[in-house]
Amino acid sequence: MTVKVITVGEDILGANEEKARANRERLDKHGILTINIMSSPGAGKTSLILSTINRLKQKVRMAVIEGDVASSMDAEKVNEQGVAVVQINTAGGCHLDANMVENALNNLPLEDTDLLLIENVGNLICPAEFALGEHRRAMLLSLPEGDDKPYKYPAMFADADVVLLNKIDLLPHLDFNIDTFQKAVTGLNPEVRIFPVSCQTGEGLEAWFSWLEAWLKDKEGR
Amino acid sequence: MTVKVITVGEDILGANEEKARANRERLDKHGILTINIMSSPGAGKTSLILSTINRLKQKVRMAVIEGDVASSMDAEKVNEQGVAVVQINTAGGCHLDANMVENALNNLPLEDTDLLLIENVGNLICPAEFALGEHRRAMLLSLPEGDDKPYKYPAMFADADVVLLNKIDLLPHLDFNIDTFQKAVTGLNPEVRIFPVSCQTGEGLEAWFSWLEAWLKDKEGR
Repeated sequence: MTVKVITVGEDILGANEEKARANRERLDKHGILTINIMSSPGAGKTSLILSTINRLKQKVRMAVIEGDVASSMDAEKVNEQGVAVVQINTAGGCHLDANMVENALNNLPLEDTDLLLIENVGNLICPAEFALGEHRRAMLLSLPEGDDKPYKYPAMFADADVVLLNKIDLLPHLDFNIDTFQKAVTGLNPEVRIFPVSCQTGEGLEAWFSWLEAWLKDKEGR
Repeated sequence: MTVKVITVGEDILGANEEKARANRERLDKHGILTINIMSSPGAGKTSLILSTINRLKQKVRMAVIEGDVASSMDAEKVNEQGVAVVQINTAGGCHLDANMVENALNNLPLEDTDLLLIENVGNLICPAEFALGEHRRAMLLSLPEGDDKPYKYPAMFADADVVLLNKIDLLPHLDFNIDTFQKAVTGLNPEVRIFPVSCQTGEGLEAWFSWLEAWLKDKEGR
């Protein structure tokens, strides 16, 4: 039984990798830079996406893929901002996969998009294993989750290009050591960029926007 | 490919159900009441377990199974309280299963245990699908995760016997509507007990302890 499960698991991951490469080629063909945004439930993925749209939509043509187990609440919020959005409901599934993203790409205006933000399902474990075709991986950890989380959920921290430490406005009310957290993250992932932010107050978000804009400029220069 | 995955998934769940029934029989034989405690990362499962040990260990013989993707930090904290504990590291796995719990039971003093608390892996999705042999399911949602979570992660809320709404000490600093949350939960699960608590300040925990004690007493009366 165990061997059977592992084998099929590898098949799934292998097939997903192949589909993710196809998505990546398609995105590259259209010159669309894509970020896979991951976190626990309620860490602030949607708030980050809404802040990013609000700040950059005059400069950058954006689209969003919203992943959720159920509901379309997040897609409705993005839609209100006048940005192209597709909601994927996984119906119990614990992560997005490359196949779901391919279906979403079929329903987005790829010719009119420079930056695609993908909000993965709220889960600090499973999404890390499934490439979607993205160019960069951003993850959020929110302060109330605790500074020990890199030790407990190492895979996602190890693979992220950017870690946003969100809800820093709550720091006075919590027992969270930012130094401890940063050391734990860079121990797993020395190259990672860490941005302490509050999507609620806007604190720290300029560093994230600047990172995004520099990356987009770098693409134009290629 | 898709059909194959679904079939094997059903095999896994079927085999798990069978093993969970065996665990349950074993626990019943020893008169051990067992709670499967589930939540997102950092919602307060370990804090709840430590508070419960601290309050009840003079009255009730307890044991704990700690589930984590990696690390043994939580088991060490429980061990310091002088309570029998086994750490399960899933090595990337996103939930405990009945097989892992069987292995843990082999390493616990079952003859000297009345109440077994199982801390599942921090994940609001996958643990809901895997029975472990438990008698009751308790889940935590922490206030910073947001009052919309029952709509987004319905399965776990629908199957819980008890929902602990933790970190209510942060209410003044957050945009969280407790009424909205309670209505959403009872809409999915009319029979559920909801306890607003703060494991940090102790507020509200007496209702949880009373519920536990009444349940344990009910067992003695049978």
